[in-house]
Amino acid sequence: MTEPPPDFRRLACPVPVTTGPTVQMAHGGGGRMSKALTDRVFLPAFRNEALAALHDGATLERPAGRIAFTTDTYVVRPIFFPGGDIGSLAVHGTVNDLAMCGARPLALSTGYLLEEGFPLADLERVVASMRDAALRVGVPIVTGDTKVVDRGKGDGVYVNTAGIGVVPDGVEIAPARVRAGDRVLLSGGIALHGIAILSVREGLAFEAAIESDSAPLHDLVAAVLAAGGPGVHVMRDPTRGGVASATNELAFAAGVGMVLDERAVPVREDVRGACELLGLDPLYVANEGKLLAIVAPDVADAVLAAMRGHPLGREAAVVGEVTRGPAGRVTVRSRVGGTRLLDMMSGEQLPRIC
Amino acid sequence: MTEPPPDFRRLACPVPVTTGPTVQMAHGGGGRMSKALTDRVFLPAFRNEALAALHDGATLERPAGRIAFTTDTYVVRPIFFPGGDIGSLAVHGTVNDLAMCGARPLALSTGYLLEEGFPLADLERVVASMRDAALRVGVPIVTGDTKVVDRGKGDGVYVNTAGIGVVPDGVEIAPARVRAGDRVLLSGGIALHGIAILSVREGLAFEAAIESDSAPLHDLVAAVLAAGGPGVHVMRDPTRGGVASATNELAFAAGVGMVLDERAVPVREDVRGACELLGLDPLYVANEGKLLAIVAPDVADAVLAAMRGHPLGREAAVVGEVTRGPAGRVTVRSRVGGTRLLDMMSGEQLPRIC
Repeated sequence: MTEPPPDFRRLACPVPVTTGPTVQMAHGGGGRMSKALTDRVFLPAFRNEALAALHDGATLERPAGRIAFTTDTYVVRPIFFPGGDIGSLAVHGTVNDLAMCGARPLALSTGYLLEEGFPLADLERVVASMRDAALRVGVPIVTGDTKVVDRGKGDGVYVNTAGIGVVPDGVEIAPARVRAGDRVLLSGGIALHGIAILSVREGLAFEAAIESDSAPLHDLVAAVLAAGGPGVHVMRDPTRGGVASATNELAFAAGVGMVLDERAVPVREDVRGACELLGLDPLYVANEGKLLAIVAPDVADAVLAAMRGHPLGREAAVVGEVTRGPAGRVTVRSRVGGTRLLDMMSGEQLPRIC
Repeated sequence: MTEPPPDFRRLACPVPVTTGPTVQMAHGGGGRMSKALTDRVFLPAFRNEALAALHDGATLERPAGRIAFTTDTYVVRPIFFPGGDIGSLAVHGTVNDLAMCGARPLALSTGYLLEEGFPLADLERVVASMRDAALRVGVPIVTGDTKVVDRGKGDGVYVNTAGIGVVPDGVEIAPARVRAGDRVLLSGGIALHGIAILSVREGLAFEAAIESDSAPLHDLVAAVLAAGGPGVHVMRDPTRGGVASATNELAFAAGVGMVLDERAVPVREDVRGACELLGLDPLYVANEGKLLAIVAPDVADAVLAAMRGHPLGREAAVVGEVTRGPAGRVTVRSRVGGTRLLDMMSGEQLPRIC
């Protein structure tokens, strides 16, 4: 009933993966300590058949549709924030990029880039969060890689996730399908993620904590596609650069114009207040659990109803319309009347937001 | 015939992606400067239909077989080295991980992690090298992401590549298929990559430059599979940790033992000399263009002949045999007689080798 003495523990685990509290260069060297880190931290968390094969890559069954493929690297600071952390964000972000292609997520990969000295306890917390997020989505993490860089050449942890998904036959989501007259739908209140991150960084306290909206959108997308069918022309999650950048990118890629109605864009009152305090336009602030859908006018009502019937889309709204042009030009009818050009952000509003 | 004055150039390109010589934080912000970097550097280099869709993910046709999926992050220093650079290495390494699953490469993704202040000219050189390597393989880079971190939180450039490939029906490459009596084949002379990197770092000059063996192995693998058919049980490219770590990992995963013959392992004379000078065992030094194949004894001669008939396998050799056990135990009959345990590397021999 007594604790084993320290030297017994050391005998039980000759590799110092758990006795040392931080990441060491040798954890990335491809030798015994790399294997120990994989065996102790990554494999138990991400347990699945493909990963258990311990091969350099995973092999998956022949998929029943076209393949969607995406990647993102996550560098958010702080790594733990209200409503999430870099691990859950890395799963949600990549699942969402797949969902924006109309794809059901099939598998994720993960590449950890660790700085020497990063606490193993923090790594384990990030990995556990990633595991939980993937389990909730129902997508396995089937292959991965870990590299360690010397102290001062990284920032604790960066995470890359790539994802593959299956696009069901008949689903065709592409900017080229957008037409003048299409409606622009937004799934809910904007600017939560950016404000959550910034309020931690700036040490701001609001009456109620503003949490990131980080969430997986694959299920909301399934509802949108079921309701709108081929009338769903394109979708985009307005992350870095916010709704302004996402609509500009879509207008540019589709060769159309867009007019948004600022009064129709849902913004929570406390978020609007925080934006005013910080001098930010909510249209430019990052989201991690919202989507823009551009749909044919005849399915707009059905898609809006489907969004509002989903837990992640209760505040969905029609926020604008596609115009013939000029290509790439997005204007907004402002809250105070009049219209203004909604340009892409030219600098960087919030560095390392995702 | 005179140079346009500076302000004219600024008018022609209001976004300072080319007038500033280094990466800035705003290049990763998701706004106008991110778009400019993508438009000027990445899109022209990686030009292809899926990428041109400018979506968050790429969509590919339904593949004719099972899917292989892999990822790796590259942190090699220096980023330019004899025989390659971080860009070509990132393509070759991920193509090789797919090839080790028996897969033909279908598409790559790329995630750039840039440090503020990194010279854009170096970025363009890395991107061009990545483009050339992908073109030689014939694999498109279909989706990507760029993040920028503040000065002192990175090291110029890190590159993640994920890859998907197609495993033809009938090909079944897995550690579980390895049997006692199988032959261990090695495709050529070892330790080139590690010694090439280390000689630059240490400022060593040898009579002839030792260049990295960085090369894509998909075509050599196709030759191996054509010759050995289902007799090819598993393949592995001995990168970080070298032949010693790769054989240990395979023996562990397959639950078998292995005996290698050190005299049969090809090592170039100048490489052996460099290893002696540096106090390194070539069996532990990284390779980036070699493969180990474990094959049934009845196809060993045919696979060896196929390797030797390929430009990347001219010095191929049978270097060992699989034994019943103990599971995970690799021994080597040394050059001077006697056998020794070939353990996994326990620390890190060469940090940031890939």
